Amino acid sequence: MEYSCVFCKIVSGEIPCHKIWESEDFVVIEDANQKVNGHLLVVSKKHYNDFLDLPSELYRNFLESVSVAVEKLGIKDFNLVLNNGKFAGQVVPHFHLHILPRRVDDGFKFGV
Amino acid sequence: MEYSCVFCKIVSGEIPCHKIWESEDFVVIEDANQKVNGHLLVVSKKHYNDFLDLPSELYRNFLESVSVAVEKLGIKDFNLVLNNGKFAGQVVPHFHLHILPRRVDDGFKFGV
Repeated sequence: MEYSCVFCKIVSGEIPCHKIWESEDFVVIEDANQKVNGHLLVVSKKHYNDFLDLPSELYRNFLESVSVAVEKLGIKDFNLVLNNGKFAGQVVPHFHLHILPRRVDDGFKFGV
Repeated sequence: MEYSCVFCKIVSGEIPCHKIWESEDFVVIEDANQKVNGHLLVVSKKHYNDFLDLPSELYRNFLESVSVAVEKLGIKDFNLVLNNGKFAGQVVPHFHLHILPRRVDDGFKFGV
């Protein structure tokens, strides 16, 4: 645990969150800053700075957690977004992925 | 193989591409429509419509292919983007992930 890390504090329960689901290695929570309705984050329980730092042994469990999260959302249209590094817009240096549910004409501008 | 699918045609060699790397199950190619310099795609060799359709047995190999691709790019700042379903902007219904290398002040507007 990194003691100054906001996601480590969420994982430990020091900062409250709306938890959707958790596996052994990941937790799925609502993003406090909802870019679209239902915006979720998949966050590693251990502190890894970013994708480059995540052990490959966790890759399958990570995507299984993503799969469960989108199943819980009950939708088939979504963006998965991982911002790696500060030039890519990674704000919190603790491994996480955004899940953005999308609906017809939701007005969200995305760019890719 | 889906005979009308542009990515199936790229995988089979019927449509030329700039191939960066390939594993048993995935191929890494340059995106023909470069949103930023070095924009890559990781594409499944077999036809799967989207993330929901990808077997979990391929999850680790998929992210290992992503890891190799970003290593080949030689950068630490990038966005990984998977658009799932037409409301999320998925244009080609064949499993693929975007890798967008990012640089300071590259002017690319992203939104998440």
